[in-house]
Amino acid sequence: MRIVVLTGGIGGARFLVGVRAYARSIGAEVTAVVNVGDDVRMHGLQICPDLDSVMYTLGGAADPERGWGRVGETWVVKEELAKYGAEPTWFGLGDKDTATHLVRTTMLSAGYPLSQVTAALCERWQPGITMIPATDDRLETHVVVDVEGERKAIHFQEWWVRYRGNVPTHRFVFVGADAAKPAAGVLEAIAAADVVLVAPSNPVVSVAPILAVQELRDAVKNGPAPVVGVSPIIGGSPVRGMADRCLDTLGVEVSAAGVGGLYGARSGEGLLDGWLVDTTDDKTDVPGVRVKAVPLWMKSEEATASMVAAALDLAGVA
Amino acid sequence: MRIVVLTGGIGGARFLVGVRAYARSIGAEVTAVVNVGDDVRMHGLQICPDLDSVMYTLGGAADPERGWGRVGETWVVKEELAKYGAEPTWFGLGDKDTATHLVRTTMLSAGYPLSQVTAALCERWQPGITMIPATDDRLETHVVVDVEGERKAIHFQEWWVRYRGNVPTHRFVFVGADAAKPAAGVLEAIAAADVVLVAPSNPVVSVAPILAVQELRDAVKNGPAPVVGVSPIIGGSPVRGMADRCLDTLGVEVSAAGVGGLYGARSGEGLLDGWLVDTTDDKTDVPGVRVKAVPLWMKSEEATASMVAAALDLAGVA
Repeated sequence: MRIVVLTGGIGGARFLVGVRAYARSIGAEVTAVVNVGDDVRMHGLQICPDLDSVMYTLGGAADPERGWGRVGETWVVKEELAKYGAEPTWFGLGDKDTATHLVRTTMLSAGYPLSQVTAALCERWQPGITMIPATDDRLETHVVVDVEGERKAIHFQEWWVRYRGNVPTHRFVFVGADAAKPAAGVLEAIAAADVVLVAPSNPVVSVAPILAVQELRDAVKNGPAPVVGVSPIIGGSPVRGMADRCLDTLGVEVSAAGVGGLYGARSGEGLLDGWLVDTTDDKTDVPGVRVKAVPLWMKSEEATASMVAAALDLAGVA
Repeated sequence: MRIVVLTGGIGGARFLVGVRAYARSIGAEVTAVVNVGDDVRMHGLQICPDLDSVMYTLGGAADPERGWGRVGETWVVKEELAKYGAEPTWFGLGDKDTATHLVRTTMLSAGYPLSQVTAALCERWQPGITMIPATDDRLETHVVVDVEGERKAIHFQEWWVRYRGNVPTHRFVFVGADAAKPAAGVLEAIAAADVVLVAPSNPVVSVAPILAVQELRDAVKNGPAPVVGVSPIIGGSPVRGMADRCLDTLGVEVSAAGVGGLYGARSGEGLLDGWLVDTTDDKTDVPGVRVKAVPLWMKSEEATASMVAAALDLAGVA
């Protein structure tokens, strides 16, 4: 069996731990297609927060308390940059992380596509799955906001980390998406998949930038594999992160039904065959989509693996 | 009074501490023209060892034990790069240093010349003198060596740090020197100088790359200011570093007389008016050059300031 997962960073990474566990138990192969909309160049370094969150988490090196970055991280480089007055100072650039970014940036400067760079970094981390960025092209999520009385577009990281989303927010723009092609290996993985899972990541800023790559979206929608999503909303609140703020911006209800409807039914304009929601949301209805309710709290690898089993069951491939 | 100093890294930086002290006592201005031949791009970072040694030393942030880099340095980035298998692993890339290199590389990538970048970094360190790289152009010292039976040119840093000079060495090549122009401000400083001092830096790999910039050398040789050098050799041994290996490669005697003769008399093909040697070398004779012997051990700021006073006296400008 081949499982493809469309995923963002931290929540997606935790979901992937369960996917990997379940896949091992049945001898399945897993390919994660990872959001790059959060990627940003800072201090000359190409930073890929979602790829790194997945890589570090599956590599057993993520910080379990903070949720992002490396366990045992230190902050000398960041402090020194601030002492030089080098902007931005609000980004959490760890020393261990800096080495990852240096290796990545050096390889990108030498002409390697991000997908090959990711594969090279994974030689160290051995995530146990195949990780591919959604695209090797530039695709950045920008956010149209009002800051100090001025309407402007800022990078997603500035919106998320600097402002914590606490600014009047009008819309999200996936810069470069029009021209972006799926990274090498993405279309092949989707074509060969027995099932495509949409991780319980932020639908607006983690999953939507992936699907903004038109050929990738088309491949999922028109491909042979059933598509099952896992709700990132439980009982009206995001499992983690700021999906509520993002959904508000789009005018979408912060509920399992709201997000399910945002993705939509594959029989219509959308792409879901099935939608897995939490037991507290067992009344959820998404027209044209099979809905199933199971416990969705990813409190352990085993609990998450059970979610994955339920998702595959809902897809009809378990 | 205006004092210009041609200088390399660590030894030159210690000399400059004395120059600054003496200059303060007489209200003089100091401009250091700093070697860039050691500069190297590693892991995507533009590293300027001599500029940094001078900047950190005069900024009170140099490590006094190790001699180079920052006091209280940590090595997380370097260790992580090694875990990725990222070459080279033999270079001492500290975390604090990394921030300096990131700021520098970002500014260079944005189009600022190295001289402006250096001025920007010095806003933090307040060295109390004006620091200018010899050139804003690429000028790198490479070394023609035999390694594993093969003759090849390696970067100076590889020769110095990785091999500690312990490889059959044929010559030093200043790549880019033919086309390199003096950095902004260098010719003006030399033209306005009351005296030009040559620091007790390595004559072969610290001072020679500066003088390899033809317009810079011509400005010193043909300028109005007397030129006095300070011997880096005391009693047949280098004060520090590997000047002996470098001089051996050129077939120059490792002595105060040997180095004085290498620089040569301004009345001939060379550029020295005066040559300051240690009291143990008081028999030193350099044809056409006034030689004076004083204690040359830079064991304190005061001792070094006394050397500087003697050098200015020898130049006839004290």
